[in-house]
Amino acid sequence: MRFTSERRLDDGVLEREFTLGEIPGILWTPASASASAPVPLILLGHPPLGLRRMYPRLVVRARHSAAEGFATATIELPGSGDRPRLPAAEQARADLRRALEAGEPVSDETVDALILPLVEKSVPEWQAALDALLSLPGIGGPVGYSGGVISIGIRLAVVEPRIVAAGLFAGSLVPRTMFEEARQVTIPLHVLLQWDDEGNDRQAALDLFDAFGSKEKSLHAHMGGHTGVPQSAGDSATRFFTRHLK
Amino acid sequence: MRFTSERRLDDGVLEREFTLGEIPGILWTPASASASAPVPLILLGHPPLGLRRMYPRLVVRARHSAAEGFATATIELPGSGDRPRLPAAEQARADLRRALEAGEPVSDETVDALILPLVEKSVPEWQAALDALLSLPGIGGPVGYSGGVISIGIRLAVVEPRIVAAGLFAGSLVPRTMFEEARQVTIPLHVLLQWDDEGNDRQAALDLFDAFGSKEKSLHAHMGGHTGVPQSAGDSATRFFTRHLK
Repeated sequence: MRFTSERRLDDGVLEREFTLGEIPGILWTPASASASAPVPLILLGHPPLGLRRMYPRLVVRARHSAAEGFATATIELPGSGDRPRLPAAEQARADLRRALEAGEPVSDETVDALILPLVEKSVPEWQAALDALLSLPGIGGPVGYSGGVISIGIRLAVVEPRIVAAGLFAGSLVPRTMFEEARQVTIPLHVLLQWDDEGNDRQAALDLFDAFGSKEKSLHAHMGGHTGVPQSAGDSATRFFTRHLK
Repeated sequence: MRFTSERRLDDGVLEREFTLGEIPGILWTPASASASAPVPLILLGHPPLGLRRMYPRLVVRARHSAAEGFATATIELPGSGDRPRLPAAEQARADLRRALEAGEPVSDETVDALILPLVEKSVPEWQAALDALLSLPGIGGPVGYSGGVISIGIRLAVVEPRIVAAGLFAGSLVPRTMFEEARQVTIPLHVLLQWDDEGNDRQAALDLFDAFGSKEKSLHAHMGGHTGVPQSAGDSATRFFTRHLK
């Protein structure tokens, strides 16, 4: 992990860009974090639209988390931003667009081709980032995962024991096989659902919530579309992490 | 309204029992409430099991609300506690028990007979209580309604303009006609659902949430049965009232 830039935001949060091999990322730490007072870490997931485009929304979440004493970090997803495209996913994305424009159902094959390579490739990258981040002074554990592509969150929750709680956003297409993986998840979950999410199948989201194996899980549905998550929902998710990471 | 007893709880909350005509009730006010500093009011709904039996759970909600600066009040439901039975509802309750014990579906007729008379009779009583409570020094507005039989909350939200926000518990049988009334509700709603509520039809609860006409509504589902609502869910409901009544 190599830091490439560093700046203080006006609320004292330290924002550092880094690269992990070829993968760009950003780390935000609260002013209070130090080697003698390490803080818990939340990995900030995001949709595969590129870190640069997602930055305004990510920095809001990062500052909010820092105010509650959490470090946050994120990395570019494979195939997004300046990273090389994933050809299979590009084809699937075109198929998805075609289906949505034609008002047709999205086939399981398209969903699998869009999501599964992203999960396969990104999960080990998040784990490598975790190795590097947890070795930094000022960053302790435990670790939470928040938001982003829900299938990545599911896989991470299953395979990465350092992640002890996850806040998931039921707002993306989910391959059928991920429902089976969801049954293997046992960590506490806080799941957000936008009730009228234009790009999301509500019943599938409810079925997925039902499938999670976690004894402690809660679903929080709010009105509005994909990007209409209210401020109070963000506050509630932060309190979930405070309960489980502190 | 006539006060019949008064005591201070150890956190300074003033608990007063009252009667409103033949109807017993309880009013809790935070230590801070005074004629020159009136506080908002939350009406505490409850299932028709009698105030005495419900007291332990009600006083927890009352103290929690008082800590956030709210007065709370509740009244005995018609047919409960020491109040005269409602013969039609008693018959329906026996039919319900029989259906549940036989593992049979509960008929619409039974649900209607159980709930509709309760709504018809109790809603004017809550409104009369509101008249009396709002005339007391130290109690101001605005007013919220919290929990209890959801059909009573729906009807109150439709007919009582002084109630500006409601926290509802999707945990009781709902007559079909209440789905139509739900469409007329426009105040902000915070709806709790126990995902594995043994006495509740989950799909009906989701359909009812969908039916509410309110632009601002949110659904919060937690694991466990009817009485397993976690502490964090109560905190979140209190914050909902703080956003809307303060």
